[in-house]
Amino acid sequence: MLKLKRIGIDTYRDNVAFIARCCTPYRPEEFQAFRKIEVIHDGNRLLASLLIVDDETIVGRNELGLSEQAFKRIQKPEGTLVQLAPAIPPRSLDHVRSKIHGHTLDESQINDIIGDIATHRYSEMEIAAFLISSAGFMTTDEMLALTRAMAGAGNQLNWDAPVVVDKHCIGGIPGNRTSMIVVPIVAAHGLPMPKSSSRAITSPAGTADTMEVLAKVDLTMEEMREVVKECNGCLVWGGHVNLSPADDIMIAVERPLAIDTREQMVASILSKKIAAGSTHLVVDLPLGPSAKVRSHEDALRLRKLFEYISDQVGLHIEVSVTDGSQPVGRGIGPVLEARDAMAVLRREPGAPMDLKEKSLRLAGQILEFDKSLRGGKGYDRACELLESGEALTVMERIISAQGRSQKEYALGTLIHDVATEADGVVTAIDCYRMARIARLAGAPLDKGAGIDLFKKVGDPVEAGEALYRIYACVESDFQFARSMAGEANGYAIGAGL
Amino acid sequence: MLKLKRIGIDTYRDNVAFIARCCTPYRPEEFQAFRKIEVIHDGNRLLASLLIVDDETIVGRNELGLSEQAFKRIQKPEGTLVQLAPAIPPRSLDHVRSKIHGHTLDESQINDIIGDIATHRYSEMEIAAFLISSAGFMTTDEMLALTRAMAGAGNQLNWDAPVVVDKHCIGGIPGNRTSMIVVPIVAAHGLPMPKSSSRAITSPAGTADTMEVLAKVDLTMEEMREVVKECNGCLVWGGHVNLSPADDIMIAVERPLAIDTREQMVASILSKKIAAGSTHLVVDLPLGPSAKVRSHEDALRLRKLFEYISDQVGLHIEVSVTDGSQPVGRGIGPVLEARDAMAVLRREPGAPMDLKEKSLRLAGQILEFDKSLRGGKGYDRACELLESGEALTVMERIISAQGRSQKEYALGTLIHDVATEADGVVTAIDCYRMARIARLAGAPLDKGAGIDLFKKVGDPVEAGEALYRIYACVESDFQFARSMAGEANGYAIGAGL
Repeated sequence: MLKLKRIGIDTYRDNVAFIARCCTPYRPEEFQAFRKIEVIHDGNRLLASLLIVDDETIVGRNELGLSEQAFKRIQKPEGTLVQLAPAIPPRSLDHVRSKIHGHTLDESQINDIIGDIATHRYSEMEIAAFLISSAGFMTTDEMLALTRAMAGAGNQLNWDAPVVVDKHCIGGIPGNRTSMIVVPIVAAHGLPMPKSSSRAITSPAGTADTMEVLAKVDLTMEEMREVVKECNGCLVWGGHVNLSPADDIMIAVERPLAIDTREQMVASILSKKIAAGSTHLVVDLPLGPSAKVRSHEDALRLRKLFEYISDQVGLHIEVSVTDGSQPVGRGIGPVLEARDAMAVLRREPGAPMDLKEKSLRLAGQILEFDKSLRGGKGYDRACELLESGEALTVMERIISAQGRSQKEYALGTLIHDVATEADGVVTAIDCYRMARIARLAGAPLDKGAGIDLFKKVGDPVEAGEALYRIYACVESDFQFARSMAGEANGYAIGAGL
Repeated sequence: MLKLKRIGIDTYRDNVAFIARCCTPYRPEEFQAFRKIEVIHDGNRLLASLLIVDDETIVGRNELGLSEQAFKRIQKPEGTLVQLAPAIPPRSLDHVRSKIHGHTLDESQINDIIGDIATHRYSEMEIAAFLISSAGFMTTDEMLALTRAMAGAGNQLNWDAPVVVDKHCIGGIPGNRTSMIVVPIVAAHGLPMPKSSSRAITSPAGTADTMEVLAKVDLTMEEMREVVKECNGCLVWGGHVNLSPADDIMIAVERPLAIDTREQMVASILSKKIAAGSTHLVVDLPLGPSAKVRSHEDALRLRKLFEYISDQVGLHIEVSVTDGSQPVGRGIGPVLEARDAMAVLRREPGAPMDLKEKSLRLAGQILEFDKSLRGGKGYDRACELLESGEALTVMERIISAQGRSQKEYALGTLIHDVATEADGVVTAIDCYRMARIARLAGAPLDKGAGIDLFKKVGDPVEAGEALYRIYACVESDFQFARSMAGEANGYAIGAGL
């Protein structure tokens, strides 16, 4: 028997066990080739990857160390006596091997795999094996089974309403913070829109990061229900709600490998929406040379995939191909994006027109899920709700209900203006590069870090004129961002459009 | 700048960097989503996977911890100042993604991938991505390019001889220690046979583990050359010789995933042989219900693959399909297998006949690579060299040249006989199960642990009679092995053959 010890190492999502090489009751090197063991306590078994430790100050010869994640999952105090055994790999790995060798999987096989992933029985490498084997080829039946299995593996929300609306953006466009405008408009009309969003993982800001500038976003499921009951809508972080957890786990593995297939993306997005209890969904699909979707064919294929799967699972969907040729709005980073969204809701004269127009169009599409507005009346209704200030009132109510932010987030005090060297007209802005610069500047970790765009496509510029301003809070980030902007500032300047 | 610190954690083959969450000059959470960073020192860059640490006794806020492997590779003392940067992934990962999406790769793309793997620029997940994407489908051109790239990525031996022979067994058959008999026979005839072998990784004994009972096996390349010059042959561990290092790295990742394709196996084996400077090769391909190769079709396909690739790279090959229906010899585990091999060489009356016959046949095939023995004279010559004691003399010379073992390895003192409950005749012995029991008993870590078979297929048995004896050195292993033999002893007893 070994004594449980918590090891302060964050192994992201992998369960990792640390065992001393000289561990007295076992010989960990016997397990090393297979890299995985079972930790047994009261008949429960936790599968964990194995690391052998040669430093007894980290883990002693009678101890079993568990990384933060694994320690949380085993739910036992330090010092608990546990046993080890060679791991018996999840049976569903046979299905993964079968997929690797070119077979297609049926619904029950996919359910087994997703069930084991959601309950942390797969190592990251095993998850990668499933993702990669599926990335090469998936039948539509497999996609459908994957979507259903992911949606069913975590919590499922139910709103007791015939129409529950949601929107989703494929991502990749900085500043595209339409949800913070769409949700209050739609909620003001009376359609329930319980929006849960992610935090940025590789981008400079997610809706949750931006909303957090104004209000508390890490609500429990119960708190979320209360807010929606009161306001018809909310803008919360999905992390506490545990919707489609297998999806989060798979995305964490996908990202460093940069495999990104249409099929997995569609299954991922729809599984979350189904689990969130949505009945009607608008998907914002930006198309542009530096967006995720770069050609019309690609956009069409993706739209068809969304429509096919949604149809099968009984979700009403509208896929809207939008302009993804440059960032939307002016600010990139939580504080700057919150400023833009509030400027639109407050009908300030300087509010970014493109963000406003796009939000109104998306809100209009969603409002047409209400039978009384069908046939083109949604957009006008959206304008009405925005211009009358009703949307702003609902937004203020949502902020109060979620809990107004106790902290005043300010812009970073390290400031650098990036200027153009040429006269002409802005012909393109590289979304990917602007996102990277803003991210290096410290967003979203520093809410006040980011980029404020002074010029957009079509604007005339003179040599020496500032294109945008970088804000940062930490010196090393400031230098990283300046140096990347110095290499290439992300703007193309031409003779005219 | 951060101060380098060695962290006593064995991360197997992965470079892992440990950074405090509160690390002052950087914010490691910015790098976390991508899981990989670059450690920069004097312009050199080491790619490492990232783990964030919350315990400052493991790594302080101004330190960069490196796991044993990464610390060895960076070749700098503790306290050296290093910098961090977000990782720039190896360009060859683009080729891997292309393969994932179903494209075939050309020779230069495969060279790039293998080069980056051999120089530790891939994380384990990235290696898995390459293996899995190739497991589904590989063209013969890809196989050929892979074989050549792997052979070329490490050291290359050159023996200045027109014929340099080698043998290889596909594995999976316990006790099959023919190399220790074949090498001295062939060397006695005068053909150079510089044999480097692996240690067991998941089996109870490799040739290197078994030879180590008698002699030193961890020779440098120079020492190996000396032995071969003196004796015409050697039996060393390949670990210090760095032949086809990408192969070792890939196998370490393949194993826990249990993906095992014919194509990758052939490329792996042949790359090692080419790098070892072999010109002529005999492959022992055991066929049996619990062997790696289980059907005649499979054996034929594998033989054709071996022949095709060997032909293209200019290696003479003979693939010999052998009886893999039960273990070869009596002992399973280093001490017991060394005993069997020496009993054959010493022409002891009780020496296992099957091991002797199989070794003579393989040696005969190899001897026929000598023109003067072609056309069936190899087997007789092998018998002559064994029976005359010349092979034994050469074996003794090899043992002396490599350095006779200073340690007397004894059999384990924990002993348990496994008896049959039925009368009848042994009809089958499960190779896989016998290997697992011997491994659980402690082999090859404990050289004296293992199994001694008293009965083989065709032997009559009476209820209560012992089938085999388990030897172990450590109590927990002894219990693991007994309990597995208790569940199912691996023997099938029938009414007769």
